[in-house]
Amino acid sequence: MQPILVPLYNGLRMEIEDYLAARGESVDSYLEAYLERRAAELLATLYDAIVYSLSGGKRLRPILVLAAAEALGGRAEEVLPTAAAVELFHTYSLIHDDLPAMDDDGWRRERPSTHRAFGEATALLTGDGLLSLGFELLANEQARLSPVERVLRVIGILSAALGPVGMVGGQLGELELDEFADGASLEGIYLQKTGALLGAAAAAGGVLAGGATEEIAALQNFGLRLGLAYQVIDDLLDLGEDRGMTYPRLVGEERAQEEAQQFTISAVKALEPLGARAAILREIGEHLLARRS
Amino acid sequence: MQPILVPLYNGLRMEIEDYLAARGESVDSYLEAYLERRAAELLATLYDAIVYSLSGGKRLRPILVLAAAEALGGRAEEVLPTAAAVELFHTYSLIHDDLPAMDDDGWRRERPSTHRAFGEATALLTGDGLLSLGFELLANEQARLSPVERVLRVIGILSAALGPVGMVGGQLGELELDEFADGASLEGIYLQKTGALLGAAAAAGGVLAGGATEEIAALQNFGLRLGLAYQVIDDLLDLGEDRGMTYPRLVGEERAQEEAQQFTISAVKALEPLGARAAILREIGEHLLARRS
Repeated sequence: MQPILVPLYNGLRMEIEDYLAARGESVDSYLEAYLERRAAELLATLYDAIVYSLSGGKRLRPILVLAAAEALGGRAEEVLPTAAAVELFHTYSLIHDDLPAMDDDGWRRERPSTHRAFGEATALLTGDGLLSLGFELLANEQARLSPVERVLRVIGILSAALGPVGMVGGQLGELELDEFADGASLEGIYLQKTGALLGAAAAAGGVLAGGATEEIAALQNFGLRLGLAYQVIDDLLDLGEDRGMTYPRLVGEERAQEEAQQFTISAVKALEPLGARAAILREIGEHLLARRS
Repeated sequence: MQPILVPLYNGLRMEIEDYLAARGESVDSYLEAYLERRAAELLATLYDAIVYSLSGGKRLRPILVLAAAEALGGRAEEVLPTAAAVELFHTYSLIHDDLPAMDDDGWRRERPSTHRAFGEATALLTGDGLLSLGFELLANEQARLSPVERVLRVIGILSAALGPVGMVGGQLGELELDEFADGASLEGIYLQKTGALLGAAAAAGGVLAGGATEEIAALQNFGLRLGLAYQVIDDLLDLGEDRGMTYPRLVGEERAQEEAQQFTISAVKALEPLGARAAILREIGEHLLARRS
């Protein structure tokens, strides 16, 4: 089968896997250098727990920041602090999600979860610290590279996606689900829990690249719907584990697989206002639908 | 004894207790109206847990934002979103601090702590939500009232004060204290744990009022040192409870009381560049030294 080729901002063509790997490495290098620079100010335990918790991971959310900016003619290098912040936000949510009071998950990113490796108090504080550190990156580092109005708008978008009407609301909504949950309420929770940050990541890239209102809205809708697809696929991959009420449990495995495809199609459709510039984002959507981990 | 009278920005004179009560009420009204406006978007549990956790409290940190702005000729009304955000940040830290994995405190602000009233998962998420909601207030509400450069600078100052080199670093440092801790390491931890947010609150008020660099530095130093005094007094008020290593345990009750006074004197001294305009802030410092709860 022919590898899928996607156009890049500089006109070269690359396979989507190579694009994801290259952008993921940019994010990792940036994060590594940033944490290195801050290491002397940080308590050793906290530095270690941060580095430990960040390692592994697909870097999907920060890559969305880069890809969205590139789709609108921006350069990946110029939005790296925001991409890195988004990965800190995602990692904070994983650490807190894994805590005994929440999902009580002992395993994450192919190693013991942060509270298993460092204890509960350190894990709680590491999550807290990553959330604030993400905002530091935005306010202090992204602000060196972008107009202040755009950075402030990005902070507004991301904080809303993380907060009570976004991710945190979705996590609490999920805890409150019972066996009478229907598809619509599950969809609402998935949108908040997973879609909000993916949508905000894409929108942030668009804002920093100077996108027009309807372009930014298209990017945010893409991310929101991609989040729905992503979460359903997550549930399908986790089938058999006790995850409470999930989409596959509600509608069956086959139907859930079809829904994930429909959500991906609707995500890609949301990109229409961007035309051909959205090629990489479309490829990312289709790539995620086919993922097996 | 004569009541202490302090000058206000509008030239009226008022007792310090009345000033604190009036400004505390402004913060509470603002917060109440803001949460009311957002209520329809929020899960009922989350709204209830937020309102519950915020009730009570002296509002010292938000009042510092207002008083610092007023000292530099700003108006309290124009910095209320930042003051409110600072109270959300403080409340988040209390909720997480009280969790079983941390101090395991069942009582806070004269009622059961949030996890005792709502369960551990909801408390964890409420804290997380308040942290993000504070940044939403800054990026979306304060930005309507102040130049974007100033708001972004405030976000940088506050996120640094909350994060790994600020409050979170201090909380973790405190957990790692052992019986060999000396005064200098305790002081460092108190500065991070308590001083950082007080200093950032005062600096934020100064930045929003358009203060000069040395004025903002004076305000931040004031808050940092006030934090030292505040924490030592907290420890003195909590004597007898098991709080691990504290200043009074290290140097004795009498000496700790003297140190609290010295820290307050040095806090007030940091205000010298502000001259007579710092009258209210000085009164706040002295008022806190005399507090009994």
